[in-house]
Amino acid sequence: MPQAAAIPQTTAGDLARRYRQTRALSLALVAPLSEADATIQSMEDASPAKWHIGHTTWFFETFLLRDHLPGYRLHDDRWPFVFNSYYEAEGERIPRFARGMLSRPTVAQIVEWREAVDAAMEPLLAREDLVPLIELGIAHEQQHQELLLTDVKHALFQNPLGPEMWPLGDARTASSLLRVSGKKSASIPAHLEEAAKPQAENPSRRTGWHTHPGGIALIGHDGSGFAYDNEGPQHRVLLEPFALADRLVTNAEWQDFIDDGGYADPRHWLSDGWAWVQAEGVLAPLYWHEGDQFTHCGWQARDPDAPVTHISAYEAEAYASWSGNRLPTEFEWEAVAHNFDPSCGNQLDEASPPMPVGGGELFGDCWQFTRSAYLPYPRFKPAGGAVGEYNGKFMSGQVVLRGASCATVRGHSRASYRNFFYPHQRWQFTGLRLARDIA
Amino acid sequence: MPQAAAIPQTTAGDLARRYRQTRALSLALVAPLSEADATIQSMEDASPAKWHIGHTTWFFETFLLRDHLPGYRLHDDRWPFVFNSYYEAEGERIPRFARGMLSRPTVAQIVEWREAVDAAMEPLLAREDLVPLIELGIAHEQQHQELLLTDVKHALFQNPLGPEMWPLGDARTASSLLRVSGKKSASIPAHLEEAAKPQAENPSRRTGWHTHPGGIALIGHDGSGFAYDNEGPQHRVLLEPFALADRLVTNAEWQDFIDDGGYADPRHWLSDGWAWVQAEGVLAPLYWHEGDQFTHCGWQARDPDAPVTHISAYEAEAYASWSGNRLPTEFEWEAVAHNFDPSCGNQLDEASPPMPVGGGELFGDCWQFTRSAYLPYPRFKPAGGAVGEYNGKFMSGQVVLRGASCATVRGHSRASYRNFFYPHQRWQFTGLRLARDIA
Amino acid sequence: MPQAAAIPQTTAGDLARRYRQTRALSLALVAPLSEADATIQSMEDASPAKWHIGHTTWFFETFLLRDHLPGYRLHDDRWPFVFNSYYEAEGERIPRFARGMLSRPTVAQIVEWREAVDAAMEPLLAREDLVPLIELGIAHEQQHQELLLTDVKHALFQNPLGPEMWPLGDARTASSLLRVSGKKSASIPAHLEEAAKPQAENPSRRTGWHTHPGGIALIGHDGSGFAYDNEGPQHRVLLEPFALADRLVTNAEWQDFIDDGGYADPRHWLSDGWAWVQAEGVLAPLYWHEGDQFTHCGWQARDPDAPVTHISAYEAEAYASWSGNRLPTEFEWEAVAHNFDPSCGNQLDEASPPMPVGGGELFGDCWQFTRSAYLPYPRFKPAGGAVGEYNGKFMSGQVVLRGASCATVRGHSRASYRNFFYPHQRWQFTGLRLARDIA
Amino acid sequence: MPQAAAIPQTTAGDLARRYRQTRALSLALVAPLSEADATIQSMEDASPAKWHIGHTTWFFETFLLRDHLPGYRLHDDRWPFVFNSYYEAEGERIPRFARGMLSRPTVAQIVEWREAVDAAMEPLLAREDLVPLIELGIAHEQQHQELLLTDVKHALFQNPLGPEMWPLGDARTASSLLRVSGKKSASIPAHLEEAAKPQAENPSRRTGWHTHPGGIALIGHDGSGFAYDNEGPQHRVLLEPFALADRLVTNAEWQDFIDDGGYADPRHWLSDGWAWVQAEGVLAPLYWHEGDQFTHCGWQARDPDAPVTHISAYEAEAYASWSGNRLPTEFEWEAVAHNFDPSCGNQLDEASPPMPVGGGELFGDCWQFTRSAYLPYPRFKPAGGAVGEYNGKFMSGQVVLRGASCATVRGHSRASYRNFFYPHQRWQFTGLRLARDIA
Repeated sequence: MPQAAAIPQTTAGDLARRYRQTRALSLALVAPLSEADATIQSMEDASPAKWHIGHTTWFFETFLLRDHLPGYRLHDDRWPFVFNSYYEAEGERIPRFARGMLSRPTVAQIVEWREAVDAAMEPLLAREDLVPLIELGIAHEQQHQELLLTDVKHALFQNPLGPEMWPLGDARTASSLLRVSGKKSASIPAHLEEAAKPQAENPSRRTGWHTHPGGIALIGHDGSGFAYDNEGPQHRVLLEPFALADRLVTNAEWQDFIDDGGYADPRHWLSDGWAWVQAEGVLAPLYWHEGDQFTHCGWQARDPDAPVTHISAYEAEAYASWSGNRLPTEFEWEAVAHNFDPSCGNQLDEASPPMPVGGGELFGDCWQFTRSAYLPYPRFKPAGGAVGEYNGKFMSGQVVLRGASCATVRGHSRASYRNFFYPHQRWQFTGLRLARDIA
Repeated sequence: MPQAAAIPQTTAGDLARRYRQTRALSLALVAPLSEADATIQSMEDASPAKWHIGHTTWFFETFLLRDHLPGYRLHDDRWPFVFNSYYEAEGERIPRFARGMLSRPTVAQIVEWREAVDAAMEPLLAREDLVPLIELGIAHEQQHQELLLTDVKHALFQNPLGPEMWPLGDARTASSLLRVSGKKSASIPAHLEEAAKPQAENPSRRTGWHTHPGGIALIGHDGSGFAYDNEGPQHRVLLEPFALADRLVTNAEWQDFIDDGGYADPRHWLSDGWAWVQAEGVLAPLYWHEGDQFTHCGWQARDPDAPVTHISAYEAEAYASWSGNRLPTEFEWEAVAHNFDPSCGNQLDEASPPMPVGGGELFGDCWQFTRSAYLPYPRFKPAGGAVGEYNGKFMSGQVVLRGASCATVRGHSRASYRNFFYPHQRWQFTGLRLARDIA
Repeated sequence: MPQAAAIPQTTAGDLARRYRQTRALSLALVAPLSEADATIQSMEDASPAKWHIGHTTWFFETFLLRDHLPGYRLHDDRWPFVFNSYYEAEGERIPRFARGMLSRPTVAQIVEWREAVDAAMEPLLAREDLVPLIELGIAHEQQHQELLLTDVKHALFQNPLGPEMWPLGDARTASSLLRVSGKKSASIPAHLEEAAKPQAENPSRRTGWHTHPGGIALIGHDGSGFAYDNEGPQHRVLLEPFALADRLVTNAEWQDFIDDGGYADPRHWLSDGWAWVQAEGVLAPLYWHEGDQFTHCGWQARDPDAPVTHISAYEAEAYASWSGNRLPTEFEWEAVAHNFDPSCGNQLDEASPPMPVGGGELFGDCWQFTRSAYLPYPRFKPAGGAVGEYNGKFMSGQVVLRGASCATVRGHSRASYRNFFYPHQRWQFTGLRLARDIA
Repeated sequence: MPQAAAIPQTTAGDLARRYRQTRALSLALVAPLSEADATIQSMEDASPAKWHIGHTTWFFETFLLRDHLPGYRLHDDRWPFVFNSYYEAEGERIPRFARGMLSRPTVAQIVEWREAVDAAMEPLLAREDLVPLIELGIAHEQQHQELLLTDVKHALFQNPLGPEMWPLGDARTASSLLRVSGKKSASIPAHLEEAAKPQAENPSRRTGWHTHPGGIALIGHDGSGFAYDNEGPQHRVLLEPFALADRLVTNAEWQDFIDDGGYADPRHWLSDGWAWVQAEGVLAPLYWHEGDQFTHCGWQARDPDAPVTHISAYEAEAYASWSGNRLPTEFEWEAVAHNFDPSCGNQLDEASPPMPVGGGELFGDCWQFTRSAYLPYPRFKPAGGAVGEYNGKFMSGQVVLRGASCATVRGHSRASYRNFFYPHQRWQFTGLRLARDIA
């Protein structure tokens, strides 16, 4: 996950409020989990929920309290070894696959630690010089909130009993809070007009297209407010004319791909993707089983009109190729996104089951694959020290996703935000929005 | 683990008492564990504690209540899939490696199931015709009690914080109950005399030898009381004269082997063992770290005079070769064991930390490797049906261990008892007793 | 492969003749191979033909010429690294999987080396004191002749063009030399009578049984003539009454097993075997494809009446279980074999395609699985030094096979001969002869 | 390897001459190899020399003779299965790892096939409509000539005897032909001036810098003459000001990186690269051993002033980071390369040992890593049918290399040429040229 050089533009009061909100949300997310739910780790890519709430606390204890609060003593000096993730400069750490063996400390012990850290943080929340670091800690914790949700989902999925994190009844209530708010993005410029989709289709699935005339686009974060270091420096990119679909590909459309033999025809697939499909015996998105899909509320009937999620980049590329379109580049996506409000769309507002519902916004529901490799922007320099250690170090072998998902805390994403995963991974809420060349 | 054709010789009252004791002991063993401790699975060879108490209950529900109690309805008809271990005739089951994902059902739910099953079992405990099956279920649960202890130990060992299952203070109390009772085996026949060990040695480590003149020995269970099917049929085996050490190899002696370069010299090792040592980078018994070893009470200083434990068959063979001796065959061991009381020695009497203390008995402290492969006795026939399904099916690639360990419930073992593991496995309380040829 | 402590009982003239015959046969076996055929290695278990003729030469150069011929200088001092197999005492050696990269030295260079070594050996062939070592070298080379044939077969099998080592026309001629000679073993004692096979069956496949009354049998080599060290010491074993089939299981019978769903029913299989069948997707013996099988003469129609070959121990166990019989122990097999002439049966007499034809002898056609694990006999002591280094070291995880195959040089096998392989291996000419308990 | 849509601009006479030259060069490259050298395959990434000369012939037989010569009959209808590489549209093919088992057909049989195909090709060489396809076949065979050389090198390297493909004496003669011709690129524009390298350094290793002012650059092939489809469409890219080193990094400089602990310090490495270094135990470039490196002339002393070769993209990135510079993007490299003559530099002119000598040109010696992922250019459309099948399909997970190596046939490369490999691969002649940002 990206680390960042933060750029302050926040009042201390606002920051303190957001700090407390963020810290409270993490606790609310583990509240429905048993001690065992919070401990298990289903694969090396995932971490236990318990570890997430410990690791985010470790971040504040290490980079804020230890480094900036005179006289602070570590809550437990053996815990950094356990809760450091990958910061080489911070010393040895537990092997990633062993995180699932942490039956101790208990959730209660970690919560106690969180409370101690939060209390100790209070004086620091008012210090102007620490705003960038605290902003970074908040953003870091928000990322882990999304991972906590997707990791728990993957862990519960392994259980043949199909357990739920939230009962569906609750979910119905909660999901209302998750649905697209209905606000429309105010200012769609002239060049983002609707273009008719050429193929005949079910009107309910009608795709409109945001067209873009090409030319020089300004890409990357402009420096106002917080952003990760990998979103900069802002720079110019030359685009060809293109169109970006005004909606995500749906479950029903994906079923058409399956029904047309999409998973069995090598012509649609990247060579690596075809090898992956065959080695893993992939026949459908993750979490699909017959007409159902696995959710935070257990197994539920699949909504054909909801966006397809939990697909790999290989699958996204194959679908795009099969459909006669392509994936957008991350620059194309961003050029369009500047005209949308990143706080709209189906995103996470509170501890409740993520539920992609397909609201028609550019942001929300699921992360959207681009065809861009995750690489440094021109003149990118990794920040020094352990906090800034390594955004660059993940710039190899991964692909960029844009947008935000139903498990992304609202307010966390931006037009310039770059998420990234390996092309075979699919336990995140990943989906796709098609693009095409235009004259 | 062996399944068995039981041979009844028990009064129903005694059986009911032992049923209840056994069922209670399982609960006592999980009592110190948190929900998370009871859920994690550290490797494919091990199972979660939660699974053990579920699986042993599944055994009684399936083979007793379902098959013999008219009108019985399953507590939850999805649970057989989860708690069946390897009985092919009982249908599909959860993949072994996925047992560690069972955050649900909770321990409390499983305990509730146990109580329901125990209540339903009451009328069956008085039925003469079911004695063999109930005996088998008790023996089966006792085996899983030992596995529960060794599996939990392995799981806690993965945690860098070195957590304990029992605090050492309690352990001191409890361990008194575990120590060798002091009873001496009454009748050592003439041919089991002491023979002087030829090498000079520390008197505290003086080894005496039980000598045996060879000839025809009667091997296998004689049919009086319960035994597993793999202990029979009783048959005659021709032995050469041999001697069996009167004590187990100790930690101090093992340290000598290490200090002499034992792990680095291929001459001592079986070819497969040498490949294993090199591939795994093995340098010491499992659970050793510097002068300490990991126990159910966390990391503790190692007692040089205690029997070495947690070694593989490869290591046992290498040590025996290095010391100029050899491992006994399972037949030699049994021929000597007929003169010892299997209920003596350091074995498990209640829910308390297993602690090998080296009492000088033939049974207890740790299982003892033999050089015998685990193979069927002459005229062995596997029993029919799912209960008897498969003792024979494990008779490939494994080695026989004899005796009993500090984690074996007292009363579970016999002179004819055959335990078996793959030669690389070492998470059990495994140790060795040397043998040698004599004229 | 076993190494041995040889026991002399040969005149020097006879020995020299056999030395030259053996050395000549190796060259005749590589003669049909191209430089490339002799170089490729199809798996880690196999070695290139080129390596076999180098390694056997290395044996004589090292243990005879270097150690016993004053002033001898190595032909090339870099070659011991290349052609040592597993003798740790002889220093470092090429990793086994890299043998297939030896495009150099060429076959011609190795043949030149062979000739130089053979010339240098001449004076040693007359030395009485070296007879055991030379006997061992001859036996060692005979073992490698069989491996050369089975390794080449496996390598050619990988080629989709199905190339042949010998053309079938030649094979017909040659195979006449391979067929069972027709000699009958002279003295079958009274207890080896025919017993009617209980099941109705095709008369052409009628099985007779050699019955044995049980009791004490003398097992192991009696010391007259050459034997490997693992065949001794001779000792007594107690047997129960049993019967051993008078013929090998045939291809047609194996087809019945397949047709009856034998590969899909876990009840017939050892647990390890069932895991192997499923992991490898095994559906038939190695080299079977529809009605054909791959031979040294390329793909040929399968003879239903020929013995089944190229099966694993797991398959042999499954078949025996399915058929209601069992495999013999190695002791049972040997007790019967003492009454048969090991020089009869379909074995290798010259460089010609091995072709199992099913002659009804106890020896020949294929090695026969026993249910015995490969373990040391009582009082077995490995010989010292590099030559004797390690027979014992392979005594782990392998099963014993008895008899001789169509690729075994006639004269190489004995009633006491113990061959051994891992239970999953099947690239040797392996087959089975059933056994059963009798009253 | 890339396939291409060829764009004709060649006279038929010239084409026929080049066809014959190319076909002859392949034969000259296998001439020094024994049958065994030409058969072995050292890893899945590599193919046997024999396979390369078969596969290139299969290309002409399939896409020219079969498709365009009426009445042509395949030389052997079983060979397409053997010699197809990855063209899914052309049907089933031999698994890649099994190519090393092709002891048959022999080199002589394949040469016979080549001659038959070449004879049959004669009438087609004059057909204007086939020029693009024949151009493609020639370029395809040139690619395989480079692979043949690097694959043979890797195979011979596995042999502990360190065999040579050419004797060094010959090599000295031949290498003179390989050295940089001395021609200087005529027109270096004003913005490509020398910039002083800031760090003090050995004058012999002085690095000059080609500076570029940034702005819009035209990237991709302009359509005049042959190019692969992945080099187009030509399009505009916006560059920031940058400088590109005027020489390659040398062995001596790489040694400094090693001496400075470069392989042991995670700060220099991409996360994937660090995992690779640790998993593989990488300590130096491939083919380094002490002061020597393995070459087509066997083991030779390493020249400190020669360009470093046989490094992975991970190593190139780590070195660049350690040195305070970075890798160029493929666009930066191409923008500079337009001013250089791609036919200069140390490239392959005839069948002789490739030997990087460091001539100071932009092309030659070794392929140069860029930081660009291998992705489609805007509006790229894969060609239809089997020939055009799949350039796009490799556009995942690989990195772009630019330039040409000492094993690239002179005339094969272009400023727009895109080579690509996975970031861990290093059996090609891969090296690096540094870049940096400038104001």
